[in-house]
Amino acid sequence: MKNFPEIEKLYNQIRQFPCQDLSSSSFSVALTKLTIACQEYLKTSTRITLISKVVGKEYFSFCEDKKNSRAVRMDLFTDDIDVLLLFLTSLENNNFESIKSLDIDKACYTIAISFCAIIDLEKIGDQKTPGTFFEHFIGHCFSKRLNVTPKTRVDVLNLDKATALPTDYIFDLGKGKAKFHVPIKTSTRERVIQVWAHQRVLDGVYGNGRFYGTLACLSETKVDKKSLEVIEICLPQQWQLYQMFIAQMKRVYYLDIPTAYLKLNDVFPKIHVKTFSDFIEETKDFSNFD
Amino acid sequence: MKNFPEIEKLYNQIRQFPCQDLSSSSFSVALTKLTIACQEYLKTSTRITLISKVVGKEYFSFCEDKKNSRAVRMDLFTDDIDVLLLFLTSLENNNFESIKSLDIDKACYTIAISFCAIIDLEKIGDQKTPGTFFEHFIGHCFSKRLNVTPKTRVDVLNLDKATALPTDYIFDLGKGKAKFHVPIKTSTRERVIQVWAHQRVLDGVYGNGRFYGTLACLSETKVDKKSLEVIEICLPQQWQLYQMFIAQMKRVYYLDIPTAYLKLNDVFPKIHVKTFSDFIEETKDFSNFD
Repeated sequence: MKNFPEIEKLYNQIRQFPCQDLSSSSFSVALTKLTIACQEYLKTSTRITLISKVVGKEYFSFCEDKKNSRAVRMDLFTDDIDVLLLFLTSLENNNFESIKSLDIDKACYTIAISFCAIIDLEKIGDQKTPGTFFEHFIGHCFSKRLNVTPKTRVDVLNLDKATALPTDYIFDLGKGKAKFHVPIKTSTRERVIQVWAHQRVLDGVYGNGRFYGTLACLSETKVDKKSLEVIEICLPQQWQLYQMFIAQMKRVYYLDIPTAYLKLNDVFPKIHVKTFSDFIEETKDFSNFD
Repeated sequence: MKNFPEIEKLYNQIRQFPCQDLSSSSFSVALTKLTIACQEYLKTSTRITLISKVVGKEYFSFCEDKKNSRAVRMDLFTDDIDVLLLFLTSLENNNFESIKSLDIDKACYTIAISFCAIIDLEKIGDQKTPGTFFEHFIGHCFSKRLNVTPKTRVDVLNLDKATALPTDYIFDLGKGKAKFHVPIKTSTRERVIQVWAHQRVLDGVYGNGRFYGTLACLSETKVDKKSLEVIEICLPQQWQLYQMFIAQMKRVYYLDIPTAYLKLNDVFPKIHVKTFSDFIEETKDFSNFD
């Protein structure tokens, strides 16, 4: 018996947390309950292997009543609930000493993709719910790790004009310290230019180097419904143009890094595309962050 | 008897014209036929007056089988097919001497909104078809007026990197002459930052002032389905931030100018928001265009 109403109830709790409560214990509790409920749900779902056109990665879909979920990466999805709970406890305490990097990546990916896959199975064409969940989940991770809750608007005082700029999450570590501009997307596609444009506005208003542009994404896979083939949709050359001509993004963190973007680490103009465990590692000491 | 299949057939013709044929006579013929078919269709549709929350503008919706179309502006919609045909003939010949400015605005608005309204009545949640039609219609108008067909990608040659940048329509009047970057949207909402970002990339790659950023839009109305109230959704302060910190758009042409954007003509930083008949007037002599 699939308990989707329970999952929906917990999602609705998570969705309604305001920014300033994203790192609260009650958020952690709801997230842990949701994680357990999602694994319970998926335990009895059929899995079909997809035909991966992505070199070095294997994917499957969960299936219910002839509906297939989005692609799930085999080596990153874990059925081991203990790994998920260890990650959530580490996150709650903001202490990752007892968890391996690979387990951080597996846990993060599994928590995010499980909820998204269940929505794929239960709803038709609902992109908003997975997006909102992912935003709150990553927002929570950043809040716990950076030890500060985000804002979603910044004041703009510019000569005779005072206005507020609505933004993605802004994590401000305080006076003279780093400020993170964190757009969060399950996948980017052609709309990603917005991310660089928002960074450009922040750079313009506050000065270059004041905000670390830090994009967080889930994956870029696309499944062909008929052939069951998985591809990754990537536009690396356009990212490079945006990086050269619009603004500088400091980091892009993926839960499932697309191969084409991984290569951007090695060519100029460099764009640093990393895993989520890299985020945990890099934010241990901000002086490494450059 | 509503002949929607005929309208669909003509739309499919229009949709399939490649860029380089946007100013062809066969396009003009298909557009004229479609215009006549749309007026024929709407002639027998009920109109209900909407409750306008926009000062100085009245709107109605077309209705069929309990479905309502988007808002249609009363003073700009014309039932006079002769006005529409005079506009289309003027456009075909790129000679607007025998048509009044107001009739240009009425004809353009009526042609665009009629097709969109019919799709609202015939389809559910289809935003793509109105968008594609509007893009082709405005692309055709620009092609005829500027006497050049558009491209949708430009080459980027940047030291060791050669790549192509997919763009909105680019109308290149030739060596040493104006080049227009023309994004076309039925409405803009929060995604409009893309327009400024694309302009920024073009400015960066080719130099400032090489491309005139020229946004073309239909309207910004939103109808509340229950209360039948019409509002305009506008973000003028954000447009000003984009204009200050991302790039300079030279013009924004609306078929139904939102009140809040009209005011941007009068305050600094100025954004020139004008009607479509202004476009026809201004492009008579490019030396006026600044």
